[in-house]
Amino acid sequence: MDFEIDGARLLSELETLATFSDSAAPAITRIVYSETDRKARAWLKDLCSQSGLAVREDAIGNLFARWHGTDPDAAAVGTGSHIDAIPNAGKYDGTVGVLGALAAIRALRAAQFTPRKSIELLVFISEEPTRFGIGCLGSRLLSGALSGAAAKRLTDRAGKPLEDFGDPENLALPTNYYASFIELHIEQGPILEKTGAALGIVTGIAAPAALRVLIDGEGGHAGAVLMPDRRDALLGAAEIALAVEAAARATGAIDTVATTGVCEVSPGAVNSIPSHVKLEIDIRDTDLARRDAVVKAVIQACETTAAQRKLQVKTEILNADAPAACDPQLIEVLTEACRAERKGFQRMVSRAYHDSLFMSRIAPTAMLFTPCRGGVSHRPDEYASAEDIVTGARTLARALAKLAA
Amino acid sequence: MDFEIDGARLLSELETLATFSDSAAPAITRIVYSETDRKARAWLKDLCSQSGLAVREDAIGNLFARWHGTDPDAAAVGTGSHIDAIPNAGKYDGTVGVLGALAAIRALRAAQFTPRKSIELLVFISEEPTRFGIGCLGSRLLSGALSGAAAKRLTDRAGKPLEDFGDPENLALPTNYYASFIELHIEQGPILEKTGAALGIVTGIAAPAALRVLIDGEGGHAGAVLMPDRRDALLGAAEIALAVEAAARATGAIDTVATTGVCEVSPGAVNSIPSHVKLEIDIRDTDLARRDAVVKAVIQACETTAAQRKLQVKTEILNADAPAACDPQLIEVLTEACRAERKGFQRMVSRAYHDSLFMSRIAPTAMLFTPCRGGVSHRPDEYASAEDIVTGARTLARALAKLAA
Repeated sequence: MDFEIDGARLLSELETLATFSDSAAPAITRIVYSETDRKARAWLKDLCSQSGLAVREDAIGNLFARWHGTDPDAAAVGTGSHIDAIPNAGKYDGTVGVLGALAAIRALRAAQFTPRKSIELLVFISEEPTRFGIGCLGSRLLSGALSGAAAKRLTDRAGKPLEDFGDPENLALPTNYYASFIELHIEQGPILEKTGAALGIVTGIAAPAALRVLIDGEGGHAGAVLMPDRRDALLGAAEIALAVEAAARATGAIDTVATTGVCEVSPGAVNSIPSHVKLEIDIRDTDLARRDAVVKAVIQACETTAAQRKLQVKTEILNADAPAACDPQLIEVLTEACRAERKGFQRMVSRAYHDSLFMSRIAPTAMLFTPCRGGVSHRPDEYASAEDIVTGARTLARALAKLAA
Repeated sequence: MDFEIDGARLLSELETLATFSDSAAPAITRIVYSETDRKARAWLKDLCSQSGLAVREDAIGNLFARWHGTDPDAAAVGTGSHIDAIPNAGKYDGTVGVLGALAAIRALRAAQFTPRKSIELLVFISEEPTRFGIGCLGSRLLSGALSGAAAKRLTDRAGKPLEDFGDPENLALPTNYYASFIELHIEQGPILEKTGAALGIVTGIAAPAALRVLIDGEGGHAGAVLMPDRRDALLGAAEIALAVEAAARATGAIDTVATTGVCEVSPGAVNSIPSHVKLEIDIRDTDLARRDAVVKAVIQACETTAAQRKLQVKTEILNADAPAACDPQLIEVLTEACRAERKGFQRMVSRAYHDSLFMSRIAPTAMLFTPCRGGVSHRPDEYASAEDIVTGARTLARALAKLAA
């Protein structure tokens, strides 16, 4: 069976979704539960309904849009991604997997395909850690990786609890809810572009860990406190950020990456010695033991800096998830779908973090990558070509047809 | 002649002024031109009027409260300081020099002193650089150190121009406006406490310089971009902050201090590589050549980091003022006034930045320091004892009487 993606419509929907943003184009800012995010999700729900799908939303905002199959007892075939975006991001991260899946479902309908198993588009809430400091919030709750009780303790940067936006209790899906789950996503890395492949079949998702480091020193007037008397929190933070880089490079493995993405300084005035700094550090590897060794090295560096600079340094592991292997049978289904496309494709690991990492706990899961220019993501100049997006959606359509038959 | 300071009233006025704050006690936040700052200045104007002084305000908010002397042709004796406060500051910085001077003037009146020269309390606007990125805005304009045209180019962090708050043109005072100027201030350093002296006579004010460093690298997803491919702006910033410390220590002089007080990171998400960092750096020394050598070393370090990490690093000198020597005759007057107090006093330099630095350009100027606990300033736990504050005000009263006679 062959499927035709309405590329013009898919691209136009991506452009429309990009207009829901709190930053000026081309930068996209869509923080979960913001007014802009709510409007984007309302638009998306309408779009799913208009496409003939039965839409429901759980208590914290995960969206489920279902095309009912002929066998009401069969577990569903799931697909989807997220639409929230970090400050000044691009318009393809997550959204290609949501609107691409919707285009794939419409292509199946247009081809008069009749699914035996239901096909369900799942739009995860809060994939980005921007607001609550933890990524993949929706899929963590759906998979039971995060308990409702633990989620109730989460607050955003302004101190507002997650619970104010919805009850996170009892959201876990039964393990027989999905027969399979496939996420389409831009690669967010340079490999497909380098090898010239149009499609990537993900065999495993790297194991991410996130650390928060709170550094307390002693403030004071920048003109008055002599250098030997200082306990400057920012200088401690500077040493730690450089140690994070050194620890990642020291493994010698190209798959080890570590990033200090957050560095907030108080009081933050030119004539005041920094008394307090908050760092947030992201450490990933495809190898769990190697990643944990980097986490350990960073914590050790924090302790060394604390002792040498007489600072109080508290480290907290925000999350340290295990890597996920993708399902071998689904990898075979995707391989077959990619072959039908008659373009280059390759198997690869995902170093980026995805909701599929958690979905793999409750369903056979795989991911399909499409290229993005220069491997750039989480930036306004993130770009994926119309051809690559359509190729990805069409390949997803083939896989869904195979799985839902 | 002996003067009696009404200590209870002075302390109570300091407490009242502390209630004008945008942070919870004991932290004081009073950003220039905020609603809170406006209310505090309105209260202060009323207080000066009630104390029998003729109050005027210039176009940008410098306050002048004058006790007219018997000789209308004589240049005035000026005294004063500022009342704006950085975020989470204490309640004595600046305010002791304003309310202490007012208490001194009331003490002179109570003692039936008749000034020949007018005595004028001057409350400078925007001493702190918090809002406009430049310290001593009021005294820079009054002294002509900053032109009205240059001031018109200043904007606050939200991009609002200074001009929206008042016209900075034509504010410079004539050089014969003040016969002398004395600023009473807490030391903001540990020296008086260490030596047990109750009073410090400032012989010179250190030469501050401020640099802004804008670092541009390349953002991207923290999971996806490999370590060798990164151009992480925060890692460059970390190296520069450590180089600032190293450069200050390398002079070997205890009077050299350098601080990176501002470090703002974009996009500032745990899973995004920092693409942009703004640093603001404060470098001070009592010796101009030595300070300028540190500025040069910091700029050199920025260039080295830029080259090694393939970052774009722009450095801008926000200000690099010359140090000021206090007036020898005024130092003698203060010495005599201190002797009358029969407590320990000593001569010292001020490493902190004061409006007196600029007033010294248009009038013979000196400063009188009182101790503060632990040398702490710009913090909620900033503290000066009632006894020390009253001693400072009484010594100032003696000096004013001598100078206005």
